[in-house]
This record gives sequence, C-alpha cells and structure tokens, in this order.
Amino acid sequence: MSITFKHLLGIKNLKKEDINLIFKTADNFKEIINRPIRKVPSLRDVTIANLFFENSTRTRLSFELAEKRLSADIINFSASSSSLKKGETLIDTVKNILAMKVDMIVMRHPDPGASTFLSRYIDVPIINAGDGAHEHPTQALLDAYSIREKYGKLQGRKVVIIGDILHSRVALSNIFCLKMLGVNVKVCGPLTLMPKYIELLGVSYEPDLNKALEWCDVANVLRVQIERQDTSFLPSIKEYSNMYGLTKERLNSISKNITVMHPGPINRGVELTSDVADSKQSIILDQVENGVAIRMSVLYLLANNIQNKNV
Amino acid sequence: MSITFKHLLGIKNLKKEDINLIFKTADNFKEIINRPIRKVPSLRDVTIANLFFENSTRTRLSFELAEKRLSADIINFSASSSSLKKGETLIDTVKNILAMKVDMIVMRHPDPGASTFLSRYIDVPIINAGDGAHEHPTQALLDAYSIREKYGKLQGRKVVIIGDILHSRVALSNIFCLKMLGVNVKVCGPLTLMPKYIELLGVSYEPDLNKALEWCDVANVLRVQIERQDTSFLPSIKEYSNMYGLTKERLNSISKNITVMHPGPINRGVELTSDVADSKQSIILDQVENGVAIRMSVLYLLANNIQNKNV
Amino acid sequence: MSITFKHLLGIKNLKKEDINLIFKTADNFKEIINRPIRKVPSLRDVTIANLFFENSTRTRLSFELAEKRLSADIINFSASSSSLKKGETLIDTVKNILAMKVDMIVMRHPDPGASTFLSRYIDVPIINAGDGAHEHPTQALLDAYSIREKYGKLQGRKVVIIGDILHSRVALSNIFCLKMLGVNVKVCGPLTLMPKYIELLGVSYEPDLNKALEWCDVANVLRVQIERQDTSFLPSIKEYSNMYGLTKERLNSISKNITVMHPGPINRGVELTSDVADSKQSIILDQVENGVAIRMSVLYLLANNIQNKNV
Repeated sequence: MSITFKHLLGIKNLKKEDINLIFKTADNFKEIINRPIRKVPSLRDVTIANLFFENSTRTRLSFELAEKRLSADIINFSASSSSLKKGETLIDTVKNILAMKVDMIVMRHPDPGASTFLSRYIDVPIINAGDGAHEHPTQALLDAYSIREKYGKLQGRKVVIIGDILHSRVALSNIFCLKMLGVNVKVCGPLTLMPKYIELLGVSYEPDLNKALEWCDVANVLRVQIERQDTSFLPSIKEYSNMYGLTKERLNSISKNITVMHPGPINRGVELTSDVADSKQSIILDQVENGVAIRMSVLYLLANNIQNKNV
Repeated sequence: MSITFKHLLGIKNLKKEDINLIFKTADNFKEIINRPIRKVPSLRDVTIANLFFENSTRTRLSFELAEKRLSADIINFSASSSSLKKGETLIDTVKNILAMKVDMIVMRHPDPGASTFLSRYIDVPIINAGDGAHEHPTQALLDAYSIREKYGKLQGRKVVIIGDILHSRVALSNIFCLKMLGVNVKVCGPLTLMPKYIELLGVSYEPDLNKALEWCDVANVLRVQIERQDTSFLPSIKEYSNMYGLTKERLNSISKNITVMHPGPINRGVELTSDVADSKQSIILDQVENGVAIRMSVLYLLANNIQNKNV
Repeated sequence: MSITFKHLLGIKNLKKEDINLIFKTADNFKEIINRPIRKVPSLRDVTIANLFFENSTRTRLSFELAEKRLSADIINFSASSSSLKKGETLIDTVKNILAMKVDMIVMRHPDPGASTFLSRYIDVPIINAGDGAHEHPTQALLDAYSIREKYGKLQGRKVVIIGDILHSRVALSNIFCLKMLGVNVKVCGPLTLMPKYIELLGVSYEPDLNKALEWCDVANVLRVQIERQDTSFLPSIKEYSNMYGLTKERLNSISKNITVMHPGPINRGVELTSDVADSKQSIILDQVENGVAIRMSVLYLLANNIQNKNV
C-alpha cells in the first residue's frame, strides 16, 4: 500500500486513505521513538534539504529529529544566510540544491502557495512545512492524530478552533483534515478574524466562546500572533483575552470535560492561561511528541513512493 | 562509581569526589581524542539539544565536538531563530524540545540562574554552558584540569585571577572549583570590578598586579568584555591595559616562571600582549584542548547516571 | 600519485598535474554521487571545520554535502555567531578550533589573502572557499571540469568571461586555471570593470559582446553583484543589461552553438535572460553537480596527502 500523492503540499488534495495510511505508519514510528534505541535505517542514503525561508523552532527541530531518527542525511538552509538576498529566484535556489543530489525538500516559506508553485518545476518530493497563511499540513495531521489517540476514532467528534482563523494556516489545514475524517467543526473568535464564506468549508461560526465550549469535545486554541497584528484586527490583546482566552474558570463552568490543544508557541495569559495549558485536559505536549512520529511517517511514505516508482 | 549530581548547574554544589571523577574520566577521553580514531560509541542513541540563547563560538563548538566524539545525536538551537521572540516562556520552549524525545540539554543563557530555574521543571540532565554573570562550570573544570595537568596536583597551588571579577562567570566558577580542590586563590584588578565581600568566598584581593604575580604559580587572565562595558567601570581600556595588562616585561620582572591562562577570546594588547599569549608559559591552547575532554567526561557521566537510575 | 600542494589557497600556485589529478579523482566521485548509495567512508575519522566569515549558500552547501558523502565529521561556524565580534584575531579563532582536534579547514572570508595569511600559522590543510575579490579555486576547478566534460579536452578551447572582471574572484581563478590548461581566454565587459594590465595574465580584452560571442566556444557569464555596486562602476543596471546581458536573440544571431556557464546565483534578466539560462546551451546545473564532485576530490586528496606524510 502506498500514498497517492507525490508532494505533501496541503491537506486539501489528500484522500482519506492517504491520511489513514499516514496514521497507521505513524503508530509504528511512535512506538519506535519510545524505545531506548530510537533510530531506524529506513532513509539511509536519502538526502533531505530543510529550507526555512521563515523563522521556526519547533517545526524545524521536529522535522530534523524525524529525519535523524530515520537515518537520513540532512542539509539545513535558513533565510538569513540565503542567496535570496542576492536576487536569486526560488526555483533557481532549489534547482541548485537539487543538482547537488538532494532527494527531498522540506520547505517553510512566508508566501502562500510557494511550495505548490515549486512543485511544478521540480521532480523530488516537497513537504510544505507552512506557506504563509495558506496550509501547514503536517500540523493538521499531528493534530488529528492526537485527537484520534485520545478518543480512539475521529468520526463524529466535535472540534472547535478558537482564534484568528483568517490568518491561520493551522486552522485551514485543520479544517480540511478534520472534515475529511468526519469530524464536526466549528470556528470561534472575533468576527474580524473570520474569513468570509467560512461556511463553504463545511464549518459553522460560533461567536460565543461559552456556547462553543459547551458544544465541543476538543478545543484547539490558536496562538494570537501578536507580532503579526500590524493592522488592527483586534481592539486590544487584553480585550481579546477577556473575550476568547481559555481560563480554568471557563473550563470549569461548562458541563463536561473537554480536551485542550494548542499548536504552540503559547502566549500564556493571552489565548490560554497557565492552569489550562498545564492541566490534565491539555494534550499540548502529546501533540509535540506526535509531531515527530507524523513527520517520520510522511517522510518515510514519500521516500518509499519514489523508490516504488523507480522500480 | 558515579557522580552525585543530576544536572551540572554550577561548581558550587559539586563534591570534591565528583570533580575527581570528572578529571579521571577526562584523562581517558583526552587520550582518545589524541588517537587517529577519536570517536567512541558511548552516547550512541542519546539525543542532546544544544540551546544557545546567547552567542558563543568556542563553547558551542567544544560541546558539539565532545558530543560528536561520543556519537550522540545532536540538535542545535540558537536564539536568533528562537520562538522566544514569539513570547514563549523558557520552560515551554524546553518542554517542547523534550517532548520530541531529547535526553540531555546543554544551555547557555544570558540570565543568571536560568539553568537552575529550568532544572526544577524538567527531568533530563541540564549542563549549564554559562548563565549570565553567574556560573560557567565546564570552563572552571577545564581550567582546574589544565593546572592539574601542568603541576601534577592542585592542592597548595597559588592562582591569581586577574580582571573583571564582578561580571565574570568564569571567575566565580573558578573560585568555587579551585577552593574546593585546595588551591590558594587571590583576585586582582581594579576595585570597581571586584564584588563586595569577595573574601567570604575564601579569596583575598590584591590590587597590585606585580605583587600578585610575584605570589602566584598561575595567572588566569580574564577577558576585558569591551562589548559589555556599557556602564563606566573603567576609566578607559588603555588605562586598564597599563595597570592590569600582562606584558612580557612584567613577566620577566618577577623572580619565577609562572603559568598564564586565559578563557578566550583574547583581546590581544588589552589584558594580554601577544608575546605573553604565544609564550611557552601560556597554556591557553591546552585549555581549549582539555575543554573537549572535560565536556566529553561530563556528558558521559551525566548520561551514565540516568541509565544507572533507570536500572 | 598525490598532489604537490598542502593547502588549496588559489589556482595560481597549482601545477598542471595537480589539476589533472583533481579532475581524475573527481571523475570517480561523480560516478559515486550518481549511484543510489552515494556515501563513501574515505574521510571517516577526519573532522572538518567550515568557517564562513561571509554569507554563502551554494558554496557552503556544496562543501557540506561533499564532506558528508565522504563521511567526514563536520563543524560549522558562521560569522554571525562569531567571536570576531568580540575582537578576537582570525589566527586565534582558528587556532582555538584546531586545538579541539580539527583536521581540515574550509574558509570563506571577505578579505583577499585571508586564507593565505592563515596558512602561514597553522598546520592543517586549508581550502580557500573564496577570499574577497582574490581567488575562489574550487569554483574555477569545477568550471574547467565542466568544460572538459562538455568538450572532452580543454587544450585549444576558447572561453570568454563576461562581466565584472575587476571585482571577481571567480574570474581571476578561472583565468589562472584555464590558461594553465591551454585554453584561450578573453574577457568582455565595460572598461570600468576591467583590471588594468589584464593582458599580463595572458588574456585579451574584447569590449564588444557580439564579437566575443562569435569568437568563443564557451561564455562564462559573471553575476552582476548588485549588492556590491556601492561605487558607480556602472551607469545603471539596465544599461549594463542592454550592452552585456546575454539574450536568446544574441545567441541566435551568432553563427555557432556556444556553451553558456554562470557561477550563480543568477540575476535573471540582468546578465542572462531566462531563456538562455534554461536553454540546452546552458550547463549551469552541471556546474553545480560537478562542484560537489570537485570538492570531494580536493578534500580527499588533501586529506590523503597529510596521511601520507604522517607515514
């Protein structure tokens, strides 16, 4: 069995069977990374370039560790040392790296669609590690995988995504992924941070946080991207926090025990208080652990795919 | 035999037997890194994260080489690409990295006590690679180790530390380490750069450089941290250099042959002239070489320690 | 058979037999990096430090991949995290790194002669990966190697180097290398960007691009270093492009099929139009691929050389 796609550019174009295969493969890798010897030789002789045209800590480290666990050879490249400053096009940069015999590309880029664009010009698999406000597919996969781990199955679950849906690649990829897997999804947050026509994606908008929490099994709380709020979508951070911040008090006021998720990095006291982030309801660190397993799975399946085609 | 501590946060809380074990283990590693094949498989399947929240060249490279010689898996993280800019707390950053299955942390941080603070919240061993003006334990260990190598034993030796004692983590860790090993220690430098109550640490202050040199076996010359002199502790670099700079002339004027040390990087012509730095009396490059052996020793013993506890 | 030089500082001091041996060895490595298993154990137990005091993407990655294919241990150091900011001298920085038991240095530095200067003070082999406007020997070797690959032999070929000859280390190293191998070389570009007495290097100046193209077999087009044009050597980029930019129209107007080279990164639409860069006449990506093989060859031969001397 193998995946039906060549590049992981977004969740949108995946099939349900692809996601199930990624999850099943991740189950194996999760078991492996919890053993004393966490390394497998699966990608020995595969060279992967991590191209980060935008700052990242957790995603970059997570991919790097996934690659190391799989015994791949790795080269890293970040925008600060980049030829882009010298006026080179993205395609030229990547084609040059590929000419040095690189087998896969993991790329984060500030421009929506950058990896999709690139995929038209190159032969090796690309994994989109976040492209502007567009998609962040491995995040959505690890999120859905973490819900599956918590509840056994996804079909019929209720998830509310809270925060800045408009600018969030995590939200968009999550919506595509969860809907495909039969999850009921609502979004919640200030109207100014909601995309128009969000209901066309099959999700509904709930402006009232308390109602949203009362409805859901899982609350996926997005980070307030304080550093990106150059235009005034919010009256103030404090007001956001009062209206949409998840507090222990709020969690206690609802009638059931919901699960709290966050893609990180957390602004403690803004979208989430510390007692919520560190509570038993939070699976935030499970998400991080699952991230390595999911990325190992995707890297492995994509590499396998090429080798099968070559036969 | 194993060490009695879980984290290497500073010299202050070590026992004498710990230091002796570190030195004995470093003897073995020093022999190994001078062989044609310098790699040992001791930390195979151990993943180490090097977290540098402050710039560093020699300490970072020294740890990285020590880890590579021990066959550890390594992930590097530096402040410039850090999520700290996104408002994440230190604990969240580190807990996230640990959730990716990392076994040890090496951390440099500009804030005094950062690694001690962190050690209260995490399970894996932390090595403090310098925390602000507080401690820099591996530097003190390699310094003491280099004196031991030169003189056979430390007990009864006389060491003067020259320079900015007030702001120096190297000085503080050196004082703790040398005193514990029975070395007589004086400090020398402008009064404005001396901590109050320095004598409570069991060292005496000698304002006159010539007298200090005449007294000691070893002069450990600190770097003038030109880039940190934002408040005026010194009338001028030139005046410092005239009063406390170590010159060949000064070394020749005393009645015995002392040993010169420096933690690097050297400001040639400021705290040390080139003819002193490059003289036979200088063991500066031995310090650097010993640094790798000491760090291998510490990494090895800390890793061993966990494995023993797990049994 | 072994090379006659200890360091690769520039092409100027090489012998013809050295270059031929480098090419012959690169032939083997080129075959190896095109196999499914691209790694050889040749430099196992050799530690290489890549010291980049100037930004670089392709040269740094190419060396790093060459080192990884040879199974060397690698430490990387870039100027941004450098102690140089702390006032340390270049010699001290490098001697410190060597004291940590490093076997070879690859260095890029903005100052002409930096690696030559360094070679007088250190024992291990240095490879100059570009020193200001002076030399870039591995680039010249890979360029000549790529022409040899295209035409079978170099003797008697005609190469024109187009662009800013005055500030280009690529041009100078190319001239030394091609002349030594019996190639006829012309330079072409605005008079303001020509070094005085260029004919003393055995090349002639052709101000007219069309004439130069009509004469040559190969056009090696240099990058307009837009970011370095702080003084006005050019009236404008647009005018340069009109006069010296290589367009498909110009290539079609000449009577033969010439080969186009470029050291990268390309400013598309400035010194080269896209239809030329991506045409069948372009061997730009072959240059990149050959770069890894040439660097493997140089690293291998230099390492071998020390080992032989040690016997």
